[in-house]
Amino acid sequence: MNATLPLMAYLNDHYLKLKVGYLFPEIAKRVRTFAADFPDKAPSIIRCGIGDVTEPLPQAVIEAMHKAVDELAHRETFRGYGPEQGYDFLRNAIAEHDYRKRGLEVATDEIFVSDGSKCDCGNVLDIFGGQNRVAVVDPVYPVYVDTNVMAGHTGTADESGAYEGLVYLPCTRENGFVPEVPQERVDLIYLCFPNNPTGSVASRDQLTAWVNYALDAGAIIFYDAAYESYITDSTIPHSIYEIPGAADCAIEFKSFSKNSGFTGVRCGYTILPKSLIALTFNREKKPLHPLWNRRFSTKFNSVSYPVQRGAEAVYSPAGQQQIRGLIDHYLGNAKILSTALREAGFDVFGSVNAPYIWVAAPEGYSSWEVFNRMLTDIQVVVTPGVGFGAKGEGYFRVSAFNSRENAQEVAHRFKTIKW
Amino acid sequence: MNATLPLMAYLNDHYLKLKVGYLFPEIAKRVRTFAADFPDKAPSIIRCGIGDVTEPLPQAVIEAMHKAVDELAHRETFRGYGPEQGYDFLRNAIAEHDYRKRGLEVATDEIFVSDGSKCDCGNVLDIFGGQNRVAVVDPVYPVYVDTNVMAGHTGTADESGAYEGLVYLPCTRENGFVPEVPQERVDLIYLCFPNNPTGSVASRDQLTAWVNYALDAGAIIFYDAAYESYITDSTIPHSIYEIPGAADCAIEFKSFSKNSGFTGVRCGYTILPKSLIALTFNREKKPLHPLWNRRFSTKFNSVSYPVQRGAEAVYSPAGQQQIRGLIDHYLGNAKILSTALREAGFDVFGSVNAPYIWVAAPEGYSSWEVFNRMLTDIQVVVTPGVGFGAKGEGYFRVSAFNSRENAQEVAHRFKTIKW
Repeated sequence: MNATLPLMAYLNDHYLKLKVGYLFPEIAKRVRTFAADFPDKAPSIIRCGIGDVTEPLPQAVIEAMHKAVDELAHRETFRGYGPEQGYDFLRNAIAEHDYRKRGLEVATDEIFVSDGSKCDCGNVLDIFGGQNRVAVVDPVYPVYVDTNVMAGHTGTADESGAYEGLVYLPCTRENGFVPEVPQERVDLIYLCFPNNPTGSVASRDQLTAWVNYALDAGAIIFYDAAYESYITDSTIPHSIYEIPGAADCAIEFKSFSKNSGFTGVRCGYTILPKSLIALTFNREKKPLHPLWNRRFSTKFNSVSYPVQRGAEAVYSPAGQQQIRGLIDHYLGNAKILSTALREAGFDVFGSVNAPYIWVAAPEGYSSWEVFNRMLTDIQVVVTPGVGFGAKGEGYFRVSAFNSRENAQEVAHRFKTIKW
Repeated sequence: MNATLPLMAYLNDHYLKLKVGYLFPEIAKRVRTFAADFPDKAPSIIRCGIGDVTEPLPQAVIEAMHKAVDELAHRETFRGYGPEQGYDFLRNAIAEHDYRKRGLEVATDEIFVSDGSKCDCGNVLDIFGGQNRVAVVDPVYPVYVDTNVMAGHTGTADESGAYEGLVYLPCTRENGFVPEVPQERVDLIYLCFPNNPTGSVASRDQLTAWVNYALDAGAIIFYDAAYESYITDSTIPHSIYEIPGAADCAIEFKSFSKNSGFTGVRCGYTILPKSLIALTFNREKKPLHPLWNRRFSTKFNSVSYPVQRGAEAVYSPAGQQQIRGLIDHYLGNAKILSTALREAGFDVFGSVNAPYIWVAAPEGYSSWEVFNRMLTDIQVVVTPGVGFGAKGEGYFRVSAFNSRENAQEVAHRFKTIKW
């Protein structure tokens, strides 16, 4: 062997730029410390922090999953490997209910069934070149940023946690937490509406401005619509493809997690239109669809068969009625919580078209200071806004994912705290 | 906007180097054409091509999955997001049954539960640097090669399908289809035993040579043990960690697909020991475990809860007995098929410790010519060896994944063909 060659495999240095996953571990640590210091108050802690559903799966889903498991118990109905991109029974149901019923044409093979939007949002970077300029919003769902860091699309982070090389689009009270299109050119843009964490939604005009920007710039929008089912305002688009031209510039991510309680069951999907084009290194134009299709064939083997049957059942008449019940339940919590916060004197955002309430901290309080007061004084766990980015400082997020009883109790407690 | 900047997002050019997924689509096309040309013979076609299981899930798995689905139907037992790396109930069962019972120490948090080994084999490249030199065997499971191409670790392919920049380790009749350690230095090495497609196994001495090579070279072995349960020879290691030093140089991939019938249920796991070290760009040594752990946290959200409960049930006494029945069934097929092939005059390899039979083509026949004769004359679909790499030319693979009845019928037909 040649002694001048390195004597060890190399790791991916970009991972070393990642900040320690700070937010939720830090929250958990502070809650643990409080519970240990005040054991008498520990039982009354109510968590409104994490965006995880609390209510059981719809009965239609339960029945479909049982039936599918039984099919796997018998040779005649057993199924092994399915199509890597998902079974047609599910892809067709998605195309019909989530798109064609709204007058949007999406081909079955433009739908890629996956184990969740979180995975897709990261994996989609595989098919893009490293030379693209990437824009994210601030505050932001951390997965968008971290997967770009891991892929080597950024430099290091500054003290505020912002990474060199990413373009941050501020979401502020002034712009209603919907970012303006940037003055500079970017290639890839992450948008999430209804938004996590702010609960904001983009109007048809705002989305049109984004689509027009992307068409002009030859940019691709990654449109995360995981909370689409929470839209109550009939003027708000449910899909980016409601905007003319979006099929030439947007990939849409959808999930069964928040509308159907699938956070632990794992199913979502991505729409990648065949009309989406990008450049090769030599500046030839090529469609992206074959690359995404190949990624699924080579690096994935689809979603568990009983899970796909469960997702299909979401679109049955019973399933549709049952998930409406779930969504109304969480939106009901959001109303109870946001009303109480308003009555307690807070400036409240989101909550109408989203299961998240974004709240301005009282004058003079940082987001962690609010977190501490809420925990200490009323034993309610909220999420400090700064955990989602520098522009989240001065805000906190309240999640509506809870039982009605807990939501009512938290609403009551919000009004008892003096600032 | 600056007109000199590119006007479109860039795609990942490396995907364009991929050869069209040729093998199985080509097989499917030839079978379709034959069936259309000879409709009277179409019903008698028996597929021994793809490595997909045919027998139903073990009853213990079925019961566990039903129970888990029922838990999700009630608020008191509902579970949302689980730990991204898998539930401890499953990780502990794996550690106990697959390792500690064999005297191997694996920590629970060195086990990463995933949706299958195919996914892990590709995803693991994320945590390694692009400057590593990668070795694969020939013939090879195509996913090892294609995921390296997609990650930009290779040049283009030559006419034989071999990619520039990869080191190919020939597996031949002379070396018993177990490659010798290379003369040159490589950083990452894919080994798969029992092997797909050749059905070969590596002896303790052969694996020891590989571990010693890797320790000397500072290389990492990716050890794909998806077919481990098919080992019948008591001298053959079931895990690379049976070899001293392997915890310092090997990542092991395991799957529930082939031993428990999970090809459509999707569950596997990876062992990444905390003792594994690699170099940063600046040649500092760092452990790989935190990177893989971070990848799971950021780009994955674990496996469906009912699936994890199903996998746990594989380790129950009933589950263990039932999967033994499945494995014995497929090994019984392998014996029937390999015996018939020998009686028909073929040189036969594999099949004793693996569900695959690797067969030398008759003198003067290429692997596709054998495929054509088998299809035309006896309506049996086999896999041409050359589809797995240049060194597979002159061989074909027969899969033992079938019903007993089909295996017996195919065995009979093998003896009727004249070469």
